[in-house]
Amino acid sequence: MKRLAILGSTGSIGINTLDVVRQFPERFQVMSLSAGRNVELLRKQVLQFRPKLVSILDAELAETLRREFSDLSLEVVDGVEGLIRVATHPEVDQVVSAIVGSVGLIPTFSAIKTGKAIALANQESLVMAGEIMMTEARKNGVQVLPVDSEHSAIFQALLGHQKDEVRRLILTASGGPFLSLPLARLQEVTVKEALRHPNWEMGKKITIDSASLMNKGLEVIEAHWLFGMPIEKITVQIHPQSVVHSMVEYIDGSILGQMGIADMRIPISYALSFPQRLPLNLPPLDLSRKAGLTFFPPDPDRFPCLQLAYRAIEIGETMPTVLSATNEVAVSAFLERSLKFTEIPLLIKKVMDQHVVKPVHTVEDILRADAWARETSKALLERGKWC
Amino acid sequence: MKRLAILGSTGSIGINTLDVVRQFPERFQVMSLSAGRNVELLRKQVLQFRPKLVSILDAELAETLRREFSDLSLEVVDGVEGLIRVATHPEVDQVVSAIVGSVGLIPTFSAIKTGKAIALANQESLVMAGEIMMTEARKNGVQVLPVDSEHSAIFQALLGHQKDEVRRLILTASGGPFLSLPLARLQEVTVKEALRHPNWEMGKKITIDSASLMNKGLEVIEAHWLFGMPIEKITVQIHPQSVVHSMVEYIDGSILGQMGIADMRIPISYALSFPQRLPLNLPPLDLSRKAGLTFFPPDPDRFPCLQLAYRAIEIGETMPTVLSATNEVAVSAFLERSLKFTEIPLLIKKVMDQHVVKPVHTVEDILRADAWARETSKALLERGKWC
Repeated sequence: MKRLAILGSTGSIGINTLDVVRQFPERFQVMSLSAGRNVELLRKQVLQFRPKLVSILDAELAETLRREFSDLSLEVVDGVEGLIRVATHPEVDQVVSAIVGSVGLIPTFSAIKTGKAIALANQESLVMAGEIMMTEARKNGVQVLPVDSEHSAIFQALLGHQKDEVRRLILTASGGPFLSLPLARLQEVTVKEALRHPNWEMGKKITIDSASLMNKGLEVIEAHWLFGMPIEKITVQIHPQSVVHSMVEYIDGSILGQMGIADMRIPISYALSFPQRLPLNLPPLDLSRKAGLTFFPPDPDRFPCLQLAYRAIEIGETMPTVLSATNEVAVSAFLERSLKFTEIPLLIKKVMDQHVVKPVHTVEDILRADAWARETSKALLERGKWC
Repeated sequence: MKRLAILGSTGSIGINTLDVVRQFPERFQVMSLSAGRNVELLRKQVLQFRPKLVSILDAELAETLRREFSDLSLEVVDGVEGLIRVATHPEVDQVVSAIVGSVGLIPTFSAIKTGKAIALANQESLVMAGEIMMTEARKNGVQVLPVDSEHSAIFQALLGHQKDEVRRLILTASGGPFLSLPLARLQEVTVKEALRHPNWEMGKKITIDSASLMNKGLEVIEAHWLFGMPIEKITVQIHPQSVVHSMVEYIDGSILGQMGIADMRIPISYALSFPQRLPLNLPPLDLSRKAGLTFFPPDPDRFPCLQLAYRAIEIGETMPTVLSATNEVAVSAFLERSLKFTEIPLLIKKVMDQHVVKPVHTVEDILRADAWARETSKALLERGKWC
């Protein structure tokens, strides 16, 4: 019986994780959950999975829940401190880190420090603090297992093979909803259009990141840390059908790739049950019903965010944090209709250009860069006419 | 330094094997070679690779070679006995079994019995004697490594994963030159047309087998023995682009596949250097230059040979031997213009229908069935009007 903490239980990955838990009650037990604002769903999850501890961001909502579940032996906590409590609960074996954004960093890092295995969906924490996190994970003998379909694919394609024989990792990208849109029309796209992902159903932030290919840029950085692979060995191919979830090319020219239907329960369940696989009750991938699978390199004019991500990790230190934090601000602004889609990379570039890179020794160094990037980008946005 | 014997050194696989050896002289040494009739090429190979022992089928040719190379310390042998000598040479570590047809069975089996590692390209030996061979290999702790691109792909996609979590193996087939030919025209195809494989350059027999899909049928049987997988878990998909060389589907719906350019040096080198890979100097697979990759189930009306192979292995015992032996006779007859392409499966079916299945305990049981099938099919061919 594996005892789980789920950070971000009411998000897309959290919901899918609980669906896997529901299918295999003899294997998994939910010890602790955290949610942001969706108290209705958290309430249902508490009643169904009976965790010992839940955390909700808002203190008032926490108090409401506390009163409501006073007859259950349920502890309710709140705030960032609450997230850390959920992630480090002494009875937890594995933490599913599925919060979106930089807020996932501290609880994920705390979980690693207390020796919990990690199923990692929170990209931002590795983007910001990859070196510190992986060093801490090695020190504590902690496995960081990928939940992203791309990294799960690479993880699977590396198993049983030798890492020093890898020629390159090939991350595939659907290209999102704007892959074939005339470039001139890109600056007029609406939020609704950007949220219409062709293949995957995901949360809002990651769906916008998929449309801009920032998602893939963050994944490149994530892959760099997760697999200890130099950045020049990590490439991206557009693959609009999203059938091959990613690939590894070896020095003999052999390429191993993982394929599947677009269902997050596959990589989630593998991260939960590794090294075993679970017999998921999902429709099989029917390759004969797929149109021809195609692959091609991303167009840098259409997807400048991808180049920004490569630039950020090549510079290193605090720069990837600035990339990721500014991107969060930019995506929020786009979702609130105060920024155009094509202005997202412009804002990020502007803030990156202004950033004075600092060495990263501690999480605090990262948080300072994160705060600086958010302030700077918000100030630029408020001032207007920055681009 | 790995010391090699190559059975069938002048064939397509043999030539490619020697090309790999030539690229990595610090890793491989050729101890013994065997050839059928191509004495000119064998002569060149002797001068370049300086084996200690060579075998050629014909005794007179052997005598010529013996005189010619009297100044080298080269032993020249002949006949089936010569093949066994090459395969069991005491200084050999690994035998590349690349003879085409049932004649490969005895020397391959002898190599296993003397504890040599096997790089197996000779499909027929596993088709005929899979159970005996794999039992003997286990007994002697012998690794049988696949050279076929399809089995190499499956071998790679199984590495690091658990065999009891396999839902099915998916062998891919190009479909050969007649994939889209109107069915009515199939009976009129010429030898030249049948030898025009769209993606791979191979020997004649295997190219005809690719056109009829008997190749894939034999591979299904081979996969059954090689990977210890029940026949109902082995499926075939037509994949005209030959980019994905085969796949493994797991119980969670995840599919792992191996891709590469159509160059036999990739699977050959892996069988020679496993568990390591060799840095081959080959052009990389450029997925962006491939047209859309497609997959679909084979049409049983177009490819009756595939169904015959499934039927043969389901019946088991001597029936796969009868399938394979009759196919060899039928392909020879087609190449000699004495049989139509569409008559190949008709002849095989006729002989299979006449066969009284016998239990297989020894190689002799197999050789008897092989001889019976050859006699019976040749008699039918001579008699004419058998279909």
